[in-house]
Amino acid sequence: MSETAPDLSTTPRLYVDQPLAPGATITLPVPQSHYLAQVMRRQPGDVVRLFDGRSGEWAARLVSVGRKAVTATLEAASAPQEAVADIWLCAAPLKRGRIDWVAEKACELGVARFVPVITRRTIVDKLNLDRLRAHMVEAAEQCGRTALPDLAEPTPLAALLRDWPAGRALIFADETGGEPLPAVCARAPAPAAVLIGPEGGFTPEERAAIRAVPQALAVTLGPRILRADTAAAVAVGVWQALVGDRAA
Amino acid sequence: MSETAPDLSTTPRLYVDQPLAPGATITLPVPQSHYLAQVMRRQPGDVVRLFDGRSGEWAARLVSVGRKAVTATLEAASAPQEAVADIWLCAAPLKRGRIDWVAEKACELGVARFVPVITRRTIVDKLNLDRLRAHMVEAAEQCGRTALPDLAEPTPLAALLRDWPAGRALIFADETGGEPLPAVCARAPAPAAVLIGPEGGFTPEERAAIRAVPQALAVTLGPRILRADTAAAVAVGVWQALVGDRAA
Repeated sequence: MSETAPDLSTTPRLYVDQPLAPGATITLPVPQSHYLAQVMRRQPGDVVRLFDGRSGEWAARLVSVGRKAVTATLEAASAPQEAVADIWLCAAPLKRGRIDWVAEKACELGVARFVPVITRRTIVDKLNLDRLRAHMVEAAEQCGRTALPDLAEPTPLAALLRDWPAGRALIFADETGGEPLPAVCARAPAPAAVLIGPEGGFTPEERAAIRAVPQALAVTLGPRILRADTAAAVAVGVWQALVGDRAA
Repeated sequence: MSETAPDLSTTPRLYVDQPLAPGATITLPVPQSHYLAQVMRRQPGDVVRLFDGRSGEWAARLVSVGRKAVTATLEAASAPQEAVADIWLCAAPLKRGRIDWVAEKACELGVARFVPVITRRTIVDKLNLDRLRAHMVEAAEQCGRTALPDLAEPTPLAALLRDWPAGRALIFADETGGEPLPAVCARAPAPAAVLIGPEGGFTPEERAAIRAVPQALAVTLGPRILRADTAAAVAVGVWQALVGDRAA
């Protein structure tokens, strides 16, 4: 970026679900248009930042500003497409909004893929994937990501384990004990996944099934019993600090 | 514990704000009494677990069960007082309940002290310490802690820095850059503290003031911009994984 390039760090940053290319003029969807026109009070000529999850981030100049339709012309690339460490988070749905929080943190912490896993003790029976995705989009807008995590369909644990990819380490938090997470991270480079159970934990049969997967690595997350949402964020955060972001 | 000791892991576990000693019969406060009598439907003779934050965890047998007053006699110690790593979390209040979540996670992750810090860009002007404490108590009950974090009075950043203890490392998340957190953890054993700013970050003047503290260690938490609540949980989680819980 040249020294005279404008400081874009305080301009609105929005995800749009359409391919972006330099020179193109696009019409933003109603929610984003409303946000820019009514909430942020932007005017024609103002610059915003857009990303499509695939082609980095772009500076775009507003051409027309209506309450329900804002158009913008893409100018220069403002950030390259990010390198994503190949880490998945596989987590059982949690009640009381905690799964929304997990989806948000998964995105902030840079996971490549988020897999809701249905286990024996999973209490939540209906999972709103659109809402989870909205939380991830908002997190990506705020944290500067140019890639959204893939959001997988809810997957029964047995199916997840049966189809587990050959080369992917399966780091799972086992409340009955395991190795310290940093030690496991040291020998579990990408591709890897973190698997976290529901509020009530895995059943003994589920734990045995997980341990039977050759790629499984049981970890302990310390001497205290962490809630599932905490365990998910901390396990991914420690992996990223020790393996992912360092390697990137 | 002998082989015939009962499995207490599924019995209710409650914090009581009164000193516990073997043989004593105590009357539980109204909320805990209500919970045991009305929610958990416990009967005289049932066993519960109690902790006072100071003397470990005790098995207690219920003597009388009323809707507003339950009495219990303390029997045997069921867990020793935990060893707490000397890590503080100093964090600016956050809006929309995110500070409650930070208090909960601070407790789950085993911090010794939680200090709400008032900074220039702190938006929240009224902080309900009783509510923060209630979140920490609930977290301690759930995660098996026998110690509650000290909850400090809200402290202006300038005062915090002026009185910073001589021997305590001050690990602060600096969005303008710093060393990777694992590298800093390696040379910041306890006592240490993690300092996290508000939603809008520290001002340049605040960052300069923090860096001027001789014990300050600026860290980066990776290539993405983490929300303040995420930064707090991950920084403490990584420190505990690399320094605190390992050393304990």
